[in-house]
Amino acid sequence: MTINLNPIGVVHSCFKEKFGTPRQPGLIEYAYGEIEIFAEYAQPEAFAGLEAFSHLWVVFHFHQTAAQGWKPSVRPPRLGGNKKMGVFATRSMFRPNPLGLSVVKFEGISVNKDSVRIAISGQDLIEGTPVMDIKPYIPYVDRIENATAGYADQSPQLRLKINWTKQASEVVEDLPLSFKNLIEKSIAYDPRPQYHQDAAADRIYGLLLDHYNVKWKVDNGQAEIIAVEMVD
Amino acid sequence: MTINLNPIGVVHSCFKEKFGTPRQPGLIEYAYGEIEIFAEYAQPEAFAGLEAFSHLWVVFHFHQTAAQGWKPSVRPPRLGGNKKMGVFATRSMFRPNPLGLSVVKFEGISVNKDSVRIAISGQDLIEGTPVMDIKPYIPYVDRIENATAGYADQSPQLRLKINWTKQASEVVEDLPLSFKNLIEKSIAYDPRPQYHQDAAADRIYGLLLDHYNVKWKVDNGQAEIIAVEMVD
Repeated sequence: MTINLNPIGVVHSCFKEKFGTPRQPGLIEYAYGEIEIFAEYAQPEAFAGLEAFSHLWVVFHFHQTAAQGWKPSVRPPRLGGNKKMGVFATRSMFRPNPLGLSVVKFEGISVNKDSVRIAISGQDLIEGTPVMDIKPYIPYVDRIENATAGYADQSPQLRLKINWTKQASEVVEDLPLSFKNLIEKSIAYDPRPQYHQDAAADRIYGLLLDHYNVKWKVDNGQAEIIAVEMVD
Repeated sequence: MTINLNPIGVVHSCFKEKFGTPRQPGLIEYAYGEIEIFAEYAQPEAFAGLEAFSHLWVVFHFHQTAAQGWKPSVRPPRLGGNKKMGVFATRSMFRPNPLGLSVVKFEGISVNKDSVRIAISGQDLIEGTPVMDIKPYIPYVDRIENATAGYADQSPQLRLKINWTKQASEVVEDLPLSFKNLIEKSIAYDPRPQYHQDAAADRIYGLLLDHYNVKWKVDNGQAEIIAVEMVD
C-alpha cells in the first residue's frame, strides 16, 4: 500500500544551505523564517485558531537527501561521526520514509485571500524545505516530563568563542542585533565536520545567512569573523 | 511534486475499534500494544540504540478516514463538537496529508532475524494502524517547557465514576489488574459522542478491548459495567 502525499507549502529560512543549518530546532532562537502555504491549501478557515498556540510541529520532506534512499545504520554527528546507530534510534534524514519532524516557535500568521504565510523562529529548516503538515504543539500530550534519551539526553554545547575583526564588526553593527546573535550562535556551535576540527588556522569558512555571506577562521577554539558581505 | 511513502510496519493495539480509543496518547497509561515492523525494514541494525530512549514518536497513517479527504474546518471533540477550528490548529485526522503523530512509551524490543517487534504503551492508536516512521523522543528538543496551547492547554478530565455489577466484577478479578484499570479509564473518559450525553439510562454501550467486549450503562455521571465477555 503506497501513500501519496503532496506538500502543502514551503519553508523560507534564514538558513540557505546545509552548512550551518542547526541539526535540531530550538538551538538557535534567533533563527527566523516563514512557511508559505500553497494556494490550494491557503484557505483562511483552515488556520483559524492557530494563533492560540505558542509552538507548532512541522512535518517536512528531507528533500535534499531523499533520492539517496535509507540507511539502516547512520553515524550521528552528536557521537563525533564515528559510532553507528540504528536509523530509527536517530532523527537522521536517511529514513525509509524521509519525513522530518521539527517543533518551531509560532511568531504570527498573515492571512489574505489565497495567501497564508506563517512566521516561525528557532527552526532547523533550510530554505526550500517542502512542508507536508503543520500541527499545534499540545503541551499536555507532547511535553513528556520524565523522558530520557541516552546519548541524546544533553543539548549540544557552544564550542567556539567568537571574535570579530574591526571590519566585520562595522558591517554587522548596522544590522539588527538579533542578526548578529544569529551569526554568532550559528558559528559557536561549530558547523564544521568532524574531520575539519584540526584544519589549518588560516582556512576560511563561509556561511550563507539570509542575504549575507559570513566568513570566518578558527584557531584553538576561537572563531574570528572576518567578513559579512551582502549577496544578491 | 508527489511523495510516495510505504508503511514500515503496523500497530497491534488493545484498542480494536474507534469507539473508546483515546483521542490523544498518554491519557490511558494502561494501554498496551506493539509495532510489528515489516520484513523489508526488520533489519536488527536499523534499531540499534533504540532501547536508550524512554519514549518514541510514531508517525502513522490515518487509514480509516484518509479516503474522506480533508476538511478546512473541523469540530474538535474537546470543544463539545459545536465549535469550528481550522484543521491545522487541531490534531484532527481530516488533514491534506493524513499523517498522525503520537508519542508512546517504549516498553521493549524483540529483535530476531527478519522480525522486529516494539512493545509500546500509552498509545492512542487503533489495531491495524499503518506506521510510517519511528523516531526517538529527544527531551531537550521535543519538550518545550513554556509552550501554551489555548483551548487545548488542559488535559481532558475523567468524567464518569465507575461501578461494577457483581457478575462483571467476578470476571475481571481473574484478569490482570492493569486490564481492569484499562477498562475503567477507557470508560471514565466517556467515549460517547456529545449527542449521547443525555441518552436513556438503560442504553447499553459496548467497547472492544483486546479480546474482551465490555458492556456498560451510564446514569447521572455514573457508569455501571455490566459485562466483560471474551470474544474470538
